[in-house]
Amino acid sequence: MNGIQDYYPDHFAHCHGCGRLNHQGLQLKTNWNGNETLTTFIPLPHHTAIPGFVYGGLLASLIDCHGTGSAALALARERGIELTQHNAPRCVTASLHVNFKKATPLGPELQIRGTIKEVKGRKVVIEAEVIANGEVCVTGEVVAVEVPENFGAR
Amino acid sequence: MNGIQDYYPDHFAHCHGCGRLNHQGLQLKTNWNGNETLTTFIPLPHHTAIPGFVYGGLLASLIDCHGTGSAALALARERGIELTQHNAPRCVTASLHVNFKKATPLGPELQIRGTIKEVKGRKVVIEAEVIANGEVCVTGEVVAVEVPENFGAR
Repeated sequence: MNGIQDYYPDHFAHCHGCGRLNHQGLQLKTNWNGNETLTTFIPLPHHTAIPGFVYGGLLASLIDCHGTGSAALALARERGIELTQHNAPRCVTASLHVNFKKATPLGPELQIRGTIKEVKGRKVVIEAEVIANGEVCVTGEVVAVEVPENFGAR
Repeated sequence: MNGIQDYYPDHFAHCHGCGRLNHQGLQLKTNWNGNETLTTFIPLPHHTAIPGFVYGGLLASLIDCHGTGSAALALARERGIELTQHNAPRCVTASLHVNFKKATPLGPELQIRGTIKEVKGRKVVIEAEVIANGEVCVTGEVVAVEVPENFGAR
């Protein structure tokens, strides 16, 4: 399934978490799901914390890329951008807060759900939850900022 | 070089970030450096955000494991534990806050430096900085909590 990440310009598509051109990365995809945003991911066996549970750094990574993807979706919607080519806005993370409410089981698909809390110019604030087996295991907040279109262009 | 992670019990040594028994992980090692704690890591080429810069999720992971490692060092020091075998305390992360101050260059060795802010029972608070080429690129805070010794034992 396509996500907002499939519409990033090529020079913004190498992210370890969500770059479609990073073949050693997680290849996360973020989409609207009603008024929320949604990313799903099944951790690999080596994404372990304590055996049986998901590594916190991976959970932080999921929230990070879910946040920047959600921010790009929000900016595209606000600007009425039709995503037909590599014309999506691209955001980076200014701050990332993660609260580990309970140990996240390693095995089931994780849902990362986002709510757009604020869009102000180039800045977007997203709240996120990571859900496993129907339970919220992790919550987080991402402050994302749009980068100039030519940043990092080769 | 040994780190506190080399003294975790085997069943706590599978973490993707810092488990000595996780051969697909980052194998981070955390040590005292005077009154600070120190972890060093050279990101791999695929740990990219925007080309030329380090992925935020990796930086969050470095702060996460540096935080739990620092917390274990602090608890071991407070209790006078001599680390001679797999007898180190083991902490997990309750919350993780990361502020991306400037883009972190991909290439040089990163230093993650920690300061123990509080030790209160099983809870330890650590402030961390990620330094590249002598500049602080990322700051963070970890609240870590000790897990029972038999948690996750097989």
